[in-house]
Amino acid sequence: MSGCPFLGRKYPLFTSKPSQAEEEDESQKGINKAMKGGIVYGEYLQLDKVLSAQVLQSQEKGNKIHDEHLFIVTHQAYELWFKQILWELDSVRDLFIKNHVRDERNMLKVVSRIHRITMIFKLLVEQFAVLETMTALDFFDFREYLSPASGFQSLQFRLLEAKIGVADHLRVPYNRRHYRDSFHGQESETLMSSEQEPTLLQLVEQWLERTPGLEKEGFNFWGKLQANIEEGLKMEKHKVEKMEDSEVKEDLLADRNKQTEVFTALFDPKRHEHLLSKGERRLSYKALQGALMINFYREEPRFQVPFQLLTALMEIDTLMTKWRYNHVCMVHRMIGSKAGTGGSSGYQYLRSTVSDRYKVFVDLFNLATFLVPRAWVPKLNPNIHKFPYMAEFYDSSYSSYSSEDSD
Amino acid sequence: MSGCPFLGRKYPLFTSKPSQAEEEDESQKGINKAMKGGIVYGEYLQLDKVLSAQVLQSQEKGNKIHDEHLFIVTHQAYELWFKQILWELDSVRDLFIKNHVRDERNMLKVVSRIHRITMIFKLLVEQFAVLETMTALDFFDFREYLSPASGFQSLQFRLLEAKIGVADHLRVPYNRRHYRDSFHGQESETLMSSEQEPTLLQLVEQWLERTPGLEKEGFNFWGKLQANIEEGLKMEKHKVEKMEDSEVKEDLLADRNKQTEVFTALFDPKRHEHLLSKGERRLSYKALQGALMINFYREEPRFQVPFQLLTALMEIDTLMTKWRYNHVCMVHRMIGSKAGTGGSSGYQYLRSTVSDRYKVFVDLFNLATFLVPRAWVPKLNPNIHKFPYMAEFYDSSYSSYSSEDSD
Amino acid sequence: MSGCPFLGRKYPLFTSKPSQAEEEDESQKGINKAMKGGIVYGEYLQLDKVLSAQVLQSQEKGNKIHDEHLFIVTHQAYELWFKQILWELDSVRDLFIKNHVRDERNMLKVVSRIHRITMIFKLLVEQFAVLETMTALDFFDFREYLSPASGFQSLQFRLLEAKIGVADHLRVPYNRRHYRDSFHGQESETLMSSEQEPTLLQLVEQWLERTPGLEKEGFNFWGKLQANIEEGLKMEKHKVEKMEDSEVKEDLLADRNKQTEVFTALFDPKRHEHLLSKGERRLSYKALQGALMINFYREEPRFQVPFQLLTALMEIDTLMTKWRYNHVCMVHRMIGSKAGTGGSSGYQYLRSTVSDRYKVFVDLFNLATFLVPRAWVPKLNPNIHKFPYMAEFYDSSYSSYSSEDSD
Amino acid sequence: MSGCPFLGRKYPLFTSKPSQAEEEDESQKGINKAMKGGIVYGEYLQLDKVLSAQVLQSQEKGNKIHDEHLFIVTHQAYELWFKQILWELDSVRDLFIKNHVRDERNMLKVVSRIHRITMIFKLLVEQFAVLETMTALDFFDFREYLSPASGFQSLQFRLLEAKIGVADHLRVPYNRRHYRDSFHGQESETLMSSEQEPTLLQLVEQWLERTPGLEKEGFNFWGKLQANIEEGLKMEKHKVEKMEDSEVKEDLLADRNKQTEVFTALFDPKRHEHLLSKGERRLSYKALQGALMINFYREEPRFQVPFQLLTALMEIDTLMTKWRYNHVCMVHRMIGSKAGTGGSSGYQYLRSTVSDRYKVFVDLFNLATFLVPRAWVPKLNPNIHKFPYMAEFYDSSYSSYSSEDSD
Repeated sequence: MSGCPFLGRKYPLFTSKPSQAEEEDESQKGINKAMKGGIVYGEYLQLDKVLSAQVLQSQEKGNKIHDEHLFIVTHQAYELWFKQILWELDSVRDLFIKNHVRDERNMLKVVSRIHRITMIFKLLVEQFAVLETMTALDFFDFREYLSPASGFQSLQFRLLEAKIGVADHLRVPYNRRHYRDSFHGQESETLMSSEQEPTLLQLVEQWLERTPGLEKEGFNFWGKLQANIEEGLKMEKHKVEKMEDSEVKEDLLADRNKQTEVFTALFDPKRHEHLLSKGERRLSYKALQGALMINFYREEPRFQVPFQLLTALMEIDTLMTKWRYNHVCMVHRMIGSKAGTGGSSGYQYLRSTVSDRYKVFVDLFNLATFLVPRAWVPKLNPNIHKFPYMAEFYDSSYSSYSSEDSD
Repeated sequence: MSGCPFLGRKYPLFTSKPSQAEEEDESQKGINKAMKGGIVYGEYLQLDKVLSAQVLQSQEKGNKIHDEHLFIVTHQAYELWFKQILWELDSVRDLFIKNHVRDERNMLKVVSRIHRITMIFKLLVEQFAVLETMTALDFFDFREYLSPASGFQSLQFRLLEAKIGVADHLRVPYNRRHYRDSFHGQESETLMSSEQEPTLLQLVEQWLERTPGLEKEGFNFWGKLQANIEEGLKMEKHKVEKMEDSEVKEDLLADRNKQTEVFTALFDPKRHEHLLSKGERRLSYKALQGALMINFYREEPRFQVPFQLLTALMEIDTLMTKWRYNHVCMVHRMIGSKAGTGGSSGYQYLRSTVSDRYKVFVDLFNLATFLVPRAWVPKLNPNIHKFPYMAEFYDSSYSSYSSEDSD
Repeated sequence: MSGCPFLGRKYPLFTSKPSQAEEEDESQKGINKAMKGGIVYGEYLQLDKVLSAQVLQSQEKGNKIHDEHLFIVTHQAYELWFKQILWELDSVRDLFIKNHVRDERNMLKVVSRIHRITMIFKLLVEQFAVLETMTALDFFDFREYLSPASGFQSLQFRLLEAKIGVADHLRVPYNRRHYRDSFHGQESETLMSSEQEPTLLQLVEQWLERTPGLEKEGFNFWGKLQANIEEGLKMEKHKVEKMEDSEVKEDLLADRNKQTEVFTALFDPKRHEHLLSKGERRLSYKALQGALMINFYREEPRFQVPFQLLTALMEIDTLMTKWRYNHVCMVHRMIGSKAGTGGSSGYQYLRSTVSDRYKVFVDLFNLATFLVPRAWVPKLNPNIHKFPYMAEFYDSSYSSYSSEDSD
Repeated sequence: MSGCPFLGRKYPLFTSKPSQAEEEDESQKGINKAMKGGIVYGEYLQLDKVLSAQVLQSQEKGNKIHDEHLFIVTHQAYELWFKQILWELDSVRDLFIKNHVRDERNMLKVVSRIHRITMIFKLLVEQFAVLETMTALDFFDFREYLSPASGFQSLQFRLLEAKIGVADHLRVPYNRRHYRDSFHGQESETLMSSEQEPTLLQLVEQWLERTPGLEKEGFNFWGKLQANIEEGLKMEKHKVEKMEDSEVKEDLLADRNKQTEVFTALFDPKRHEHLLSKGERRLSYKALQGALMINFYREEPRFQVPFQLLTALMEIDTLMTKWRYNHVCMVHRMIGSKAGTGGSSGYQYLRSTVSDRYKVFVDLFNLATFLVPRAWVPKLNPNIHKFPYMAEFYDSSYSSYSSEDSD
């Protein structure tokens, strides 16, 4: 019925946050301002700016093409949502950087905002359906006017990739140019300085490294897990060896050996370093251990929300590659697959970015390779089991821990 | 991989539309301009305006609330898409107003653009999922700063309703105020002048009235249909009357009588006028006949695309009410159902707009009440059957009929 | 690439759950069975049954209508998913009934399964888009063959409503018949016995009543909240009273009085009983207090997952009404709005069920009416703040608490 | 409100199709049967079969795992929808095979059914979201019981691929095995015999080859187009050559040469044969011409619906690859990327099928490479422009052309 989910109140519901010891004059002023001034819908949303930003190049050049308007609006909608994603991403990174996550109360915020990012990405994936109502012929009619504008020049998308943690050295170069070459001046600086900041990947990594239970002198999860698995595999092998000779037995033995290999590699720190250097792993060895621990004990109260976080991070990765893939599909329809001017075509370049090289949290996916029967998972002793929340920053005032919002 | 589906070309693919008799100097200029000038992504999309329009009122008032950013971006995205819908809607109305639809070649354009509107509405319905990641508590934290801004003040949404054909007298008043009272000055004028223009409903109505085959002196669809149905119903009744007396027979007779009533009403023009005056029908009697005709003969080449159009118009109606309903659901979560300040609450008002009174093409839905067995549908004679396209504006130049775009 | 997300292994990855003290002979048997026997895709999914269940009534009666196949498959898909929802619902109810939720470790399971139900409902809402590719005319062609089959006869849907907690006395009767009258014999019994079991609503209610912090002798949330709100409202009013007389002042005073009324009602247990009896509230007074408490302190570790649960329950309600509304929209297209045989039409009946009377967790939505500034929320003292998890059932064996699955 | 969109009628609306010359006794019988017999919801949908087909292997083996139920239901839902897709696909292929498409009245049916397939595929892509609520750990718990069942054994999916036209020689082999090796007995025969039938690709190809306007002695589209393009390119080049020497000029010349190359290749039949043999093109040369013609003249009444068909075919391709890609993403989460038992892993295999080799209508996408300015498109002369529908099968009885449904 209305363009928005909020329904105007003539006056504020509650005049003031601080209910204590307040100057009456101040509050009086507040009320009067709300009465006279206030703000209306269009002003609030700055619609004069937002809705005057659709200038068709085809029209400027005297040949107005109807569908260019859709093209512009779609891209502006993408950019609006990219801004929102960056807003959430920065706030989450900030919670990690300032170490507010040591207060477990902030984990709900972290997981909710990461979840929100996934919801936005889902919308962005859907959004292609609108642009796909434009045919290749419709696009052809105004395509020439856009030159040399290009999606490669979307600063926000590059920031988004960088801040999540897409690795520079794993990127596919396009016609031998680095992606940063598309940017100049202020934009180039913004990009470079953002690359200096800790990425979401790095922050999550540090947090995972602190997973309680990893301490060697304490619960020593990793040591216990290794022992259990080695024992378990040995027994499995033993059983097979007792079988009578047969093709089946041979197959099973091969299988067991393979399995042993997989786990031997898991417990070999050098192997990890090697995979890191090749970009096939992205997390530190200790962080990987933390992630596996959270997976195995995800039902422990302490780990329930952390487990949700790991799941949501995988979803971001998945949705980004789905976005890339939907993008590729659309480009195929719009401009075909052939290169226009030598070098690899845009289509082929985009296709190559739909790759695990661009999956930032690839380790979380690959944890599935290292699952074992529940009976092999080290048992928690009651002490560990009960560990209470370390609410280190609590109290003084209830709202203290939402202070990240105000500074 | 990039923020957009277009891939920059360094130079235009083809320098010029008019391939004939062109001054070389002109074309030379064109090339040079493209070389030097050109336009980059951010400029093209005017991102300086679009991405600087997010000012949090909570922050302005010294109490920055994180989630207000989402609130703003979501509403801006809604407004961007409303603008696109208006763009498509105006172009379609224009094709009807200028009578370009008499050239059947333009029907593909009409149906494609109406279809595009449905795709946008689908996205807008999905989009609520993003805003729903905000909880009532998060909203409460900044809600007071918005006063008195309200979704009732969305000019574009009101234009959209008016241009499609939501009837003024069928609207539900909110606390006894007319919806136009929320607008002042320029906005109010824009709204009033748009209400003077022919609505999509009226234009479709006129077009339906011209459906070939309705002519009394010609194929006389309506007359023939009435005769067939009366004959058919009589035979049905006859069969039942021959049954032995039983409860079943009585039920069947009651059923047949009811059926006869429904169709008698259909063929009564006065009844139609009465329903029109009550707002239960919106199309003229003749247009209703045209719509039914298109339904029955939808497989005739001449009627295939018109039938798609009628289907797409119903979808717009359906999606608008779904949008309204999703809106209501969200408002329920955000502010509860109780009235704040006397009068009906915003929630209750919005709920009352999810009503068939707001369905513009309600007659197209209700056609389903008047379906009959295929054998009762008047047969086309070969003459009618073959009627060729009346391509009245064709030729001179191929692109002539896309001229609506350039003026 | 394949019809499913699983990729066959020739042999099981790990032969056996119980790694301890196992008879070798047993394990040997296990391996051999897996080798020879095993199960293939089609058998596993019993596709012989599932894919042979599409019998067109139109074809049986000698007039095969193509679209009836879609009609059947769509409804079968609905029923399959209803079964899955019931599966999840029963398992969650079981966790509550057996009081396994007192072990907080099970909360992740509860919230994940409720979340899964919402994901299924989302799919079911989408699914209408497929059936909507059938036009009213296509439906008309085979509609007569279905008589007297009717969606009213879907046992699973009724079970689902009953088990969630749709109240019998709040249902809209259809042509004066009770919904249970559509069922006979075994089905009728199943339905009646399911109505004897505790509903999800009742189980959640009991759980909410146990919210830690509600104890009068302890933290006494409700008492403290009432005191704070009364104090807060008094100060608000005081401020306004000091203003000079004006229209503004009068409006504000009226507003404050209204506000006082709302909260006075909240703290009046008799008022609550009255609303309960009218069906406008569904939760006990104590449970309502628990729900509000969880909302206010949702960031406390103990309350993070419970808060997610409350949100997910609202989503189930919302999605069920969206499903109902999409259903209504489709019915409007398929059969029009007019009654066929006296009494209210099916369309009008269905429309009346899209109502808050059918919202089971309506109280959770209406909590939004009772939000107050954060400063009014009683502060937790460090003791409360820290309260550790009561992991009462923990240990003996790690997997003990997943025992609900095996019995 | 009910499990389905149909609302029972006690009696059929119209007793009988054949309204003429009918034996009263017959109709009497019909009525009585409907009264007594009739069919109820559960029977109609054969829910006894459909809802009893969920047998958990984990439960059979004494270790019931909750999530296996979801796994089964999801796959059964996939198979149900695959059956529906095959139903639509076979009916469309039949319309082509019997040459009913020469009666243009059937084109609405063809395009509607292909469109329906795309809507089902959209749902199937969404459906992954439900299965993704299962974590890798949940899957691990019952995964071993499934062996050796595998999605590779989905007969319907293979039929679907084969009938659309996925080329045998373009498939990626999995561990050197042909996909057909997973099937035996009856299934293997069904698969082989379906491979003998004309594929949708072949049928569309034949239809495209008959596009009116391709006749060399007639409008000679291809000849005229070639002439126009050669002339156009020459003029473009001429303009550039007149420029003063500069880097820009050189770039432009290179660009023009490239462009010339692209079109020279297009008009070279041998080049086409070469690409065909490599699998980079799939349509015959003449069919390719027809497709391009329909694209250029899509607004001609005769070509509007055919153009919609080409668009819908591309959408099927796109959605199938999106389905494959979503599948890959889920597999990555469920089992990680590493091979279990030597050879390429299932994940890597599936990933390789998300490839243009599996795009059946790849030529339709690549048409975008051959677009030219509208001025270069050969003008229709009024004769061509007007050509009426060839309604060859029309009349005798109106419903004759829907006879494909009854045999």
